[in-house]
Amino acid sequence: MKYRLKVEVSLKPSHSDPEGETAARLLRELGYKVEGVNVSKAYNILIEASSREEAFAKAEEMCRRLLANPTKDNYTIVVEEEK
Amino acid sequence: MKYRLKVEVSLKPSHSDPEGETAARLLRELGYKVEGVNVSKAYNILIEASSREEAFAKAEEMCRRLLANPTKDNYTIVVEEEK
Repeated sequence: MKYRLKVEVSLKPSHSDPEGETAARLLRELGYKVEGVNVSKAYNILIEASSREEAFAKAEEMCRRLLANPTKDNYTIVVEEEK
Repeated sequence: MKYRLKVEVSLKPSHSDPEGETAARLLRELGYKVEGVNVSKAYNILIEASSREEAFAKAEEMCRRLLANPTKDNYTIVVEEEK
């Protein structure tokens, strides 16, 4: 079975996000009433797994082993069955 | 009223995504049966607007004016009311 993993890796709230701050400044200069911007990275991963649970477990493992830095990143995982 | 704009900017399918290809290769080297990876950027924007419709229209405008490159990017927008 194929599953699509949607993994979003964002900075923990206590860490500064210069890319988000720059985007916020530029948007304000363009006239938008922006209070704040956070930028994160979204991975869309197509994977073979035997069940949704296995796909989710693999996504968590991928985050711990490669995609996220436990010191500075949070991550969220959504698993969708691929048609 | 405050709204949270979730804007995801991804490469159009015809454009090569070297970051995604690298992530796919590294995940395969770690033993995962990955068919493909796409990497996109997610902006989480807190903004002041008078209605959900206005917030959505502003998000679209932000994409056109700053966040997305019409030549190579697609974008999706989700608007949430901020409590």
